[in-house]
Amino acid sequence: MGIEVILEPIQEQLGKVEERLHNDLSSGDTQLADLIFHIGKIKGKRFRPALLLLSGKCSGSFVPQHIDLAIVVEMIHTATLVHDDIIDEAVIRRHAETINSKWGREISILFGDYIFSRAYTILSALDSQIATLIMSQTINTICEGEIVQLLRRYDSDITESEYLSIIERKTASLCAASCKLGAIFSGANKRLSEALTNYGLKLGMAFQIIDDCLDVIGKEEEVGKTLNTDIQTGKLTLPLIRLVNRLPVNRKESACELIFQNGGKKTNSAIIDLLSEHEAIDYAYESARQLVKKAQEEISFIPDTIFKTALLELGDYVVDRER
Amino acid sequence: MGIEVILEPIQEQLGKVEERLHNDLSSGDTQLADLIFHIGKIKGKRFRPALLLLSGKCSGSFVPQHIDLAIVVEMIHTATLVHDDIIDEAVIRRHAETINSKWGREISILFGDYIFSRAYTILSALDSQIATLIMSQTINTICEGEIVQLLRRYDSDITESEYLSIIERKTASLCAASCKLGAIFSGANKRLSEALTNYGLKLGMAFQIIDDCLDVIGKEEEVGKTLNTDIQTGKLTLPLIRLVNRLPVNRKESACELIFQNGGKKTNSAIIDLLSEHEAIDYAYESARQLVKKAQEEISFIPDTIFKTALLELGDYVVDRER
Repeated sequence: MGIEVILEPIQEQLGKVEERLHNDLSSGDTQLADLIFHIGKIKGKRFRPALLLLSGKCSGSFVPQHIDLAIVVEMIHTATLVHDDIIDEAVIRRHAETINSKWGREISILFGDYIFSRAYTILSALDSQIATLIMSQTINTICEGEIVQLLRRYDSDITESEYLSIIERKTASLCAASCKLGAIFSGANKRLSEALTNYGLKLGMAFQIIDDCLDVIGKEEEVGKTLNTDIQTGKLTLPLIRLVNRLPVNRKESACELIFQNGGKKTNSAIIDLLSEHEAIDYAYESARQLVKKAQEEISFIPDTIFKTALLELGDYVVDRER
Repeated sequence: MGIEVILEPIQEQLGKVEERLHNDLSSGDTQLADLIFHIGKIKGKRFRPALLLLSGKCSGSFVPQHIDLAIVVEMIHTATLVHDDIIDEAVIRRHAETINSKWGREISILFGDYIFSRAYTILSALDSQIATLIMSQTINTICEGEIVQLLRRYDSDITESEYLSIIERKTASLCAASCKLGAIFSGANKRLSEALTNYGLKLGMAFQIIDDCLDVIGKEEEVGKTLNTDIQTGKLTLPLIRLVNRLPVNRKESACELIFQNGGKKTNSAIIDLLSEHEAIDYAYESARQLVKKAQEEISFIPDTIFKTALLELGDYVVDRER
């Protein structure tokens, strides 16, 4: 099922988010207009705004702040992507040229900072500080996860649980925060808010595992972004960690050499053969599927509505997209 | 007069800022400890915390939030420096190795983001949103100023007033915000708060003009940071803009060629000779001196106290330091 169909119940609110995103990014200086126009026209899946809005509807009614917050989580996600694309030297993102490729590293750094601060400006207009606190802690967690991932580059001793801790922080934390904000601004009680937060966390982890699989086996024209960046930048992700762990001790070293030496090349057929031989991609997909199942179980007690159904379907979408 | 002597009246509060800076940056992940230790031990002049604290004392009494806010403005300044040092490829800052030189570009990007989000976490614990609003708008303005400066690189048509607009945004805005926050958290009335904000803005512009002069004529061992980065990265600053404007039309092009061609070299004796011949450095110093005078006039109506004296002396310090 396509994501547009799944998100049908919140189409109207997502439309409002879309309308305001560009305006809320605008600057008083016309020299920034090209940058803002470019980032505005690159339309992502709006996955995090969707999580926030659906969690809100599963917890009660919408308040105007839900739209503000949906814009904030999308802006923060976008800011992290602008910075990530410098780190990964990515050329394509969301089927369009990256800011890094079009304007260079220096402007990308500052434009990422600019987007972050626009998001905080929206947060500072809300009547409580709770969202500012949740978002600043979340960005902190994201940065920690990303820094630790960088510090562990080319480290073939990285374990599956260390990998899971990294992706929980760098990706799942923002999905969890999106669900949490949606829930608490609809007045969710503690149990409901925690269940939705846990749902977001597990779904976010599954999302990243699949992203990491697609980075190895996906096709750029389908996924819509520069792929093969993990191996090229020395990041061992779940399928590769699984592969290394499955090999006998005497073959580990040569496999790691193969992974990192081949990293510079666009086609990695030797690595893909090895992954296939050891069913490492299947293993990663199965891990993601288990996480989605647990995420769906977290919210099983919530009364059935079209919004809950959408959340459940988003889970399946995360695993089945674009393979 | 040394800055330590000038800041004597707020020594106790600056001590508290120093004590808490390191703790407030700490992470739950021990793998970040080296980064946080390194940034913590690099002690700057704490110019912005000083502006905030002195403005507070000129407006009334200290409240506990003054220390929080002093930490916030220093953190935000530090985060911008971490990102600037990537852009300028600087090796030395505050007499120590930069994060960029020691850990590389990727980690520097994320660590800058990390410091920004720690600052917002402190802001989110305050009981009002006003500081979050002021800081997010200020960071926005800083980024705008820096982006416009980058977009105008190698553009010899840049005017003095465009330069002043850039430095007002990229540097002076944070000095102004520091004064403003100090004032309003001491309950300053509108006139006092605006006067101190204007003082900070003008002083900040003078500060940047002198910084830009030192970038051309300073000695690295005295200034304590990598110099000559402006010319190397194509930024025309006030002394160079003055020089270009003073030359007859038929010499402008060759002067610009000389500036940018020589940019790669550490010694720029031909440029320095030209600047000297046209008294362009003197002109920039005089511009800074005029701005300091105007800054000092802004606060002339404030009753005389040791805190006001310190603000006035900071003005003279800004121009006379390290030449």
